[in-house]
Amino acid sequence: MIKIAIDANGGDYGVDTTVLGSMLAIKKFKDLELILYGDENKIKPLLTDPTRITIVHTDQTIDMGEHDPVKAIRSQRDASLCLAMKACKNGEADACVTSGPTQCVVVGAHLLVRRLPQMERVALCPFVPNMDGHPRLLLDVGANVELKKEHLGSLALFASVVAEETLKIKNPKVGLLNIGSEPGKGREIEKEAYEYLSSMEGIHFYGNVEPTEMIHCPCDVVVTDGFSGNICLKSIEGTAKGMAAMLREEIRSSLGGIIGSFFMRKNLRRFKKRMSTKEVGGAMLFGLSKIVVKAHGNSDPQAFFHAIRLSRELVEADIITKVVKKLPKTEENE
Amino acid sequence: MIKIAIDANGGDYGVDTTVLGSMLAIKKFKDLELILYGDENKIKPLLTDPTRITIVHTDQTIDMGEHDPVKAIRSQRDASLCLAMKACKNGEADACVTSGPTQCVVVGAHLLVRRLPQMERVALCPFVPNMDGHPRLLLDVGANVELKKEHLGSLALFASVVAEETLKIKNPKVGLLNIGSEPGKGREIEKEAYEYLSSMEGIHFYGNVEPTEMIHCPCDVVVTDGFSGNICLKSIEGTAKGMAAMLREEIRSSLGGIIGSFFMRKNLRRFKKRMSTKEVGGAMLFGLSKIVVKAHGNSDPQAFFHAIRLSRELVEADIITKVVKKLPKTEENE
Repeated sequence: MIKIAIDANGGDYGVDTTVLGSMLAIKKFKDLELILYGDENKIKPLLTDPTRITIVHTDQTIDMGEHDPVKAIRSQRDASLCLAMKACKNGEADACVTSGPTQCVVVGAHLLVRRLPQMERVALCPFVPNMDGHPRLLLDVGANVELKKEHLGSLALFASVVAEETLKIKNPKVGLLNIGSEPGKGREIEKEAYEYLSSMEGIHFYGNVEPTEMIHCPCDVVVTDGFSGNICLKSIEGTAKGMAAMLREEIRSSLGGIIGSFFMRKNLRRFKKRMSTKEVGGAMLFGLSKIVVKAHGNSDPQAFFHAIRLSRELVEADIITKVVKKLPKTEENE
Repeated sequence: MIKIAIDANGGDYGVDTTVLGSMLAIKKFKDLELILYGDENKIKPLLTDPTRITIVHTDQTIDMGEHDPVKAIRSQRDASLCLAMKACKNGEADACVTSGPTQCVVVGAHLLVRRLPQMERVALCPFVPNMDGHPRLLLDVGANVELKKEHLGSLALFASVVAEETLKIKNPKVGLLNIGSEPGKGREIEKEAYEYLSSMEGIHFYGNVEPTEMIHCPCDVVVTDGFSGNICLKSIEGTAKGMAAMLREEIRSSLGGIIGSFFMRKNLRRFKKRMSTKEVGGAMLFGLSKIVVKAHGNSDPQAFFHAIRLSRELVEADIITKVVKKLPKTEENE
């Protein structure tokens, strides 16, 4: 059995997303056991199937608009997010899934789940949709505004193991996000990281990747600091949403558009699906001693299901053990 | 008369773009005089109208694949780009338009055109297409990988004057590109810049702007360092191009799609036009003592025409004098 702790109160829609998503997962995976941390009175009416479900009641929730993550995590130890993470740390669960506010998830992961001793940084890593239909890993997208070359190195290694196991890619290629394709481009950190990643063992370094290439990416994994990664990811998101909105506006602006869209409704649906992030399962937190997956705050049940699916996949593949084997030994684990 | 120096050999297509674009400009603006720096033998056959055109012959060109901009500018003083810039500096022309390689244009501007004494940095500033049809100014997008708060301040001031004059916006709003909307988000530089821009006179500071908002932007001007700006701009470009390609693919994949696209051909054309950068005239170089406009390397004659149009507009509005009036006095100009 794979046990996953669910932050059931979390996210923009709380139980309406998390419990319904959990039901989809329980139905799909017979080896799955879920512990729902949240408001029992709200959860129970939504449980269409109580098989392999445990509820741990709490009515505390980390607010989605929380601006002081450290204070929030320290002062609300009974919040559903904190309880789910602690269960993960204590071994009561193998993984934790939450759609809580990003910075609180990152801080909670640091304070409650804890880093692997070999990893100096925790990074947030989503799957980025790609034109060829195969998502790519981009990290860090916001856990650390700055990272050193060694951090980028160990995160690249972590991500490579995940790419091998989840995307089934042998020897995944790692790129460095940069403003030019040639070596020597970028800031000091990019120049140093280029050198460092080039000579690093255990990863397959491709070279620089320009942001123009992100959605038809020549690599499987792209590493950068959390500030640049966040800028890149949010620019892609904003443009994709904006363009979809403009296309809708233009189509609806005339009868020809409406008739045309009827003929090409299947084509438009496929187009929409190709850019959708719903099936990619949210962002993973890398560098921790356990699996933590963060679903989008405004996930619907389907998207939350995919976050559970992803966390189950990472547990099943025994990602943490595989990463630890590849990482250099520290004094603590020698 | 407004005199503009044209780097006629520059860009991916050389004279085929620059001379044809110049012809369009000469036809449109009767107060325009152009000096074409380039290969006379190639230029002459393309001159449909020699009125208000001077040719200064040179067969030297800065190669589009040039990797060492400083060496290129220093060793090829007779290259069309360098001659056009020198003419600008010497007062033989009021502005310079080039579609040469970006980093060579930046270095050339530094070494040949020179900065205003009050500006410590030169920045590259394109117009970014917006959903509402009104382009925004984003800077720096690649002239400096890092910038201090004071640099962002003087560049914000420069851009505000340009937004007032070219976009006809009274009291343009200035935003700071950041990974969150609240103050206190981002790296040290964003926190410092937020404070600095908030208390600065002569600009209207709006606050942080997230990259998701860039294409339906609440500000007229968005400032950031050249690394982050380049990441943002190229992510937008890549996504827009990728999505357009995917839409084409999906439409052409079935008969329904083809029939549908016939009905909505006008709608699709409008959609394409809204995201097009052709009419925005390329990127301006801010911080110089003269107007320099860089057209895209792969500009067609229409896009190059718009770069000339833009440079003419900036000269006509007497941008440099207006910026200098707003900048704090230095010892040199007191």
